[in-house]
Amino acid sequence: MMLVNGRPASVLPLNDRGLQYGDGLFETLRIRQGHPSHWQRHLERLREGCRRLGFAAPDAAVLETEAGRIAAAHPDGVLKLMVTRGPGPRGYRPPASPSPTRILVGSPLPDSLSVWRRDGVRARICRMRLSSNPALAGIKHLNRLEQVLARSEWEDEYQEGLMLDGEGRVVEGTMSNLFLVRDGMLLTPSLDQCGVAGITRARIMDIAAGMGIVCGQTGLRLDDLFRAEGLFLCNTLIGIWPVRCLEGQTLPVPDLVRRLQQQLDTQDP
Amino acid sequence: MMLVNGRPASVLPLNDRGLQYGDGLFETLRIRQGHPSHWQRHLERLREGCRRLGFAAPDAAVLETEAGRIAAAHPDGVLKLMVTRGPGPRGYRPPASPSPTRILVGSPLPDSLSVWRRDGVRARICRMRLSSNPALAGIKHLNRLEQVLARSEWEDEYQEGLMLDGEGRVVEGTMSNLFLVRDGMLLTPSLDQCGVAGITRARIMDIAAGMGIVCGQTGLRLDDLFRAEGLFLCNTLIGIWPVRCLEGQTLPVPDLVRRLQQQLDTQDP
Repeated sequence: MMLVNGRPASVLPLNDRGLQYGDGLFETLRIRQGHPSHWQRHLERLREGCRRLGFAAPDAAVLETEAGRIAAAHPDGVLKLMVTRGPGPRGYRPPASPSPTRILVGSPLPDSLSVWRRDGVRARICRMRLSSNPALAGIKHLNRLEQVLARSEWEDEYQEGLMLDGEGRVVEGTMSNLFLVRDGMLLTPSLDQCGVAGITRARIMDIAAGMGIVCGQTGLRLDDLFRAEGLFLCNTLIGIWPVRCLEGQTLPVPDLVRRLQQQLDTQDP
Repeated sequence: MMLVNGRPASVLPLNDRGLQYGDGLFETLRIRQGHPSHWQRHLERLREGCRRLGFAAPDAAVLETEAGRIAAAHPDGVLKLMVTRGPGPRGYRPPASPSPTRILVGSPLPDSLSVWRRDGVRARICRMRLSSNPALAGIKHLNRLEQVLARSEWEDEYQEGLMLDGEGRVVEGTMSNLFLVRDGMLLTPSLDQCGVAGITRARIMDIAAGMGIVCGQTGLRLDDLFRAEGLFLCNTLIGIWPVRCLEGQTLPVPDLVRRLQQQLDTQDP
């Protein structure tokens, strides 16, 4: 099922700035039992994105109603929610009074998510780097060529690729955030220069705090990953994936990662 | 007039990767006397962009035929030609055999271009920085949020804003390339880390060579601009715009800039 501004549609006008410039944002939500999970957190990030891009977020009640329609059609699936700055004339200059476009697309869950959650995944280090721009860091905007080019570096031999910034700091996976375990603590890359501040990343930090586990956001290098007691990836759809193998090197899966998986599952009926 | 894959259309399927990720390229062409100007140069840049993004460029003859149809409908106007990686399933991973989408849109010329060409323009320095990524530098891809945010910093009080990279090097305008005159030579920012390698920029370098004028590509700082004998902007639509005023400081327009304008005009019947 697909909705554009509340109406069933499968197309978008060519003059939409989402197409012209990637001038918009998106959220990927897990639908469980006919409801979009963690709606408020996704809505908050979307609003923050709109604020950063400088246009008014769509009405929350309207979005929630439309998300509910998709969720009813895909009760155990995925909702991709895009909001663009809407149509506009030629040129980069944003319209003075934009009419943002709401695009909601429902789809089935990808395969094998729970297998990788149990068995762990193989990850690689991408050659493609993430560029740094504090103005765009953290938000989930539609300029995703770096992720596309990174993901084109391999086929099925890995489940995810890790991306570094121009200075060699590890930032995230192409579609996931990253944590490592060191001395019983969690560390995750800080995202003030690039990267997407994931909803599941935030949930894991909250869960860790509730479990009395210290979790720090910091600069991390490849050395830190290979020396870690454990490494895991997260996003809304995969939950937590332990990394079993990084560039051919086997990594252990600490008990702490299994406990975090359990806590995350407990929150998701 | 608008064509999508050769058919009159005003919309694009939602699953097109141009919308989903900005996974594509564009060219803006001036149409003169019913023909797209400098077609071969634009085609070459588009092909280079496709090569860098990793998909096959559309057939040149097909593109030329479609551009001709737009040009016939807008004999003294603008052609925006977009090529995306085409439709695809969910996820960043590019389809193994993509079917690129061709989008051609004709529109009238913007107002006042020739007035600014004669009188010179007012320019500002944007706060928004350009991020650096050699993998994307030079090509005219669809990830244009930095330009959108830069252009949203002012209304009508300037005709263009100049953008710096994260290290404070001047790169280009939001929609134009930049040259300065120093000791009778031309200097233009090198574009190996970010920026768009403009067609008119390349033409000006060729013209300068033909006139025996040295033209260098190098790193430039704000100091260099304010100390220059003259400064000008260029793109396919504006031709050459002398900068009369940069952040309130008046700049001279050297005779060399007028001669380059004449030479550029001579090539464009």
